[in-house]
Amino acid sequence: MKADLICIGDELLSGLIENSNVNFLAGRICSAGITVRETCVVADDQKAISAALKRALAASGIVILTGGLGPTDDDVTREAVAETLGLPLVLHREWLQRLENFFAERGFKMPENNRKQALVIEGGELLENTRGTAPGILLKKDGKLIVMLPGPPNELHSMFDHSVIPVLSQWSGGEEIRTRILKCTGIGESRLEEMIKAAGKWDMPPISFLAKGHEVHLQIKASGDPKTAAAEVDKAEDRLRSILGRYIYGCDDDTLPGVVAGMLTEQKLTLALAESCTGGLLSHMITNIPGSSKFYRGALVTYSKEAKIKVLGLSAEMLEQEGVVSAATAGAMAERVREALNADIGIGITGIAGPKSDNSGASVGLVYISISSGSGTEWKELKLVGGRRDVKERASQIAIDILRRRLVAWKKS
Amino acid sequence: MKADLICIGDELLSGLIENSNVNFLAGRICSAGITVRETCVVADDQKAISAALKRALAASGIVILTGGLGPTDDDVTREAVAETLGLPLVLHREWLQRLENFFAERGFKMPENNRKQALVIEGGELLENTRGTAPGILLKKDGKLIVMLPGPPNELHSMFDHSVIPVLSQWSGGEEIRTRILKCTGIGESRLEEMIKAAGKWDMPPISFLAKGHEVHLQIKASGDPKTAAAEVDKAEDRLRSILGRYIYGCDDDTLPGVVAGMLTEQKLTLALAESCTGGLLSHMITNIPGSSKFYRGALVTYSKEAKIKVLGLSAEMLEQEGVVSAATAGAMAERVREALNADIGIGITGIAGPKSDNSGASVGLVYISISSGSGTEWKELKLVGGRRDVKERASQIAIDILRRRLVAWKKS
Repeated sequence: MKADLICIGDELLSGLIENSNVNFLAGRICSAGITVRETCVVADDQKAISAALKRALAASGIVILTGGLGPTDDDVTREAVAETLGLPLVLHREWLQRLENFFAERGFKMPENNRKQALVIEGGELLENTRGTAPGILLKKDGKLIVMLPGPPNELHSMFDHSVIPVLSQWSGGEEIRTRILKCTGIGESRLEEMIKAAGKWDMPPISFLAKGHEVHLQIKASGDPKTAAAEVDKAEDRLRSILGRYIYGCDDDTLPGVVAGMLTEQKLTLALAESCTGGLLSHMITNIPGSSKFYRGALVTYSKEAKIKVLGLSAEMLEQEGVVSAATAGAMAERVREALNADIGIGITGIAGPKSDNSGASVGLVYISISSGSGTEWKELKLVGGRRDVKERASQIAIDILRRRLVAWKKS
Repeated sequence: MKADLICIGDELLSGLIENSNVNFLAGRICSAGITVRETCVVADDQKAISAALKRALAASGIVILTGGLGPTDDDVTREAVAETLGLPLVLHREWLQRLENFFAERGFKMPENNRKQALVIEGGELLENTRGTAPGILLKKDGKLIVMLPGPPNELHSMFDHSVIPVLSQWSGGEEIRTRILKCTGIGESRLEEMIKAAGKWDMPPISFLAKGHEVHLQIKASGDPKTAAAEVDKAEDRLRSILGRYIYGCDDDTLPGVVAGMLTEQKLTLALAESCTGGLLSHMITNIPGSSKFYRGALVTYSKEAKIKVLGLSAEMLEQEGVVSAATAGAMAERVREALNADIGIGITGIAGPKSDNSGASVGLVYISISSGSGTEWKELKLVGGRRDVKERASQIAIDILRRRLVAWKKS
């Protein structure tokens, strides 16, 4: 079974925004055992959409279109698909009511042009949008599956996972592809590959390496009858775990903050942060985890020397002697925030995110991370490269990984 | 003049790697005054490449192909293009020598399959690759310009800028496209369109709407001789500014945090934040701005009731009476953090990010934002929709926009 993707939007042809939908959809579709034959991007233009749709329908059993479902005049995907398939657009009264309520709740009358977002192609099924006003449409016609999704990634992602994936699995039938992604951090792609090669001949399902942000993801892929494929993937995972050990923090949908949140909750430990150069990013990553209020006390983002003295109670002499960017300062930050917020674990981060250094002569990318708990205070010195965002992201990622390794060690002991 | 892009590679259809070339090339091509008509991604397959090339040549004067120029058997772009155009491949002796030297310098004999990287389509020009073994090919045939580039982004970028851009400018001749993006926040796409329509007939260069995160970007686009096009864009900008006023926060490369940072610096005001439901995101957004340490004091991320009492010094009685999620609490947070961090402006945010509510009965998405300064304390109540991330992002965006509007008002007064 093959699928074609058609992304619609002038803005995607201007280089103004990145088209992250293709990558997301292609990954999901491949995992469902379906091959993506071609993808294309066309303008908000009925003729262009129609030509792309005809081409895709001639070659693939599944066609997924994204974008052009908004309320404005340049959104013409609905109209183009209906015309190409020779089907009328019909009003979906329930969705119209939803739209009217949506605006009423916010104290507005619904703009007239939003009305067209309640139009569905005859015979099609409306896919609920919990994050926006444009619903999706799913349609089966002449043995083909046609799916229309809104362009904004956050709307598209949840709609695809909730409403489209189950239909796709049914639709494709037959041979399955089983995959597993093992997520590693604290190690580079080529070093990972070296470790695997050094462990002997690889006679298992193929693995591919994907550097993603500050992580490397290993994908194991096996095909064939579902049972054998699943067993092969499990065997390869066991082998990789025995080779790579602590570098693997999780698999598939796991995230590093999510894994650490699970461990904190399980071990009934609470956390507090004192951030300087990461500027609140670490706190943001932790609070992205639903339920983090169970273990997370909060953060003191002390972005100035004065704030470190006034809020964290660090001594001006110590900051003067040791330097604001120093192991001693990171350690004191971790200890003080642990006390101030009454937490089991405190993390302190101080460093130079750039683009310029402070007046101390410390170089951009120098970061100290400290972790403090009932069993003492440790620290780590990092020399990071890249721009301001890179330094913030990498330092936050490493801080969470340091915490993860501590939690693993405590659990074992 | 129009251009088509064809990206070639199985890996681009698997979701494993992001296709950053499209975005780079589309941006560069548009800046050169050429419209990108369509882009597509096809597999490493001669028939698929040939079909895409024929389609592109029928519709556009310029066709750019990327990828499939490597030495391995699955790299077939060269062969597919030659066959489609009915032209033979000829050996480029100089490049073959370069390849042989390349390997010899590294102490290897050139693998036999690298030889095909010295094949050029007859009549075509070889584009030097300073970063890899695959040269590009540039070909003019029947009034069409065909360019083949290697897939790795670092090789493609420098080759495009050095060898292709100069040819493109000549090829497209004369006509240029001038664009401007006006960035709006605090208003939806359809309401914006209504306001513009209500202001009378639009007899200016076309504008397109792009919802991006929690902003709407309006792109004005004019073509023709450079001077007229630039004047038309300016005129359209003036008109949109008179219609949309305060909703426009900036243009082109501006970001909302960046604009606010500039205003704070200019007005010599300092800022401190007390965050609850946004969990550090607002602080992260502010500290992403280089130079923010000049005006930014820091944040107290008080994620628990205890932290609000202990760190911000809020009274337990007030929290009990008014509720943790209330206008009074947001106001007190803003006032206290302003004092605690000795800042001119304090912002307090409290709310329910979800997925579940707290025990107070407040509904998910209820958020209070307060801003406190020498001229008093104000607050705003929001009812936001979406998941945890949406609520965090939207609340942070709105908080920055409230600050922006205050700064605009202060500047005027």
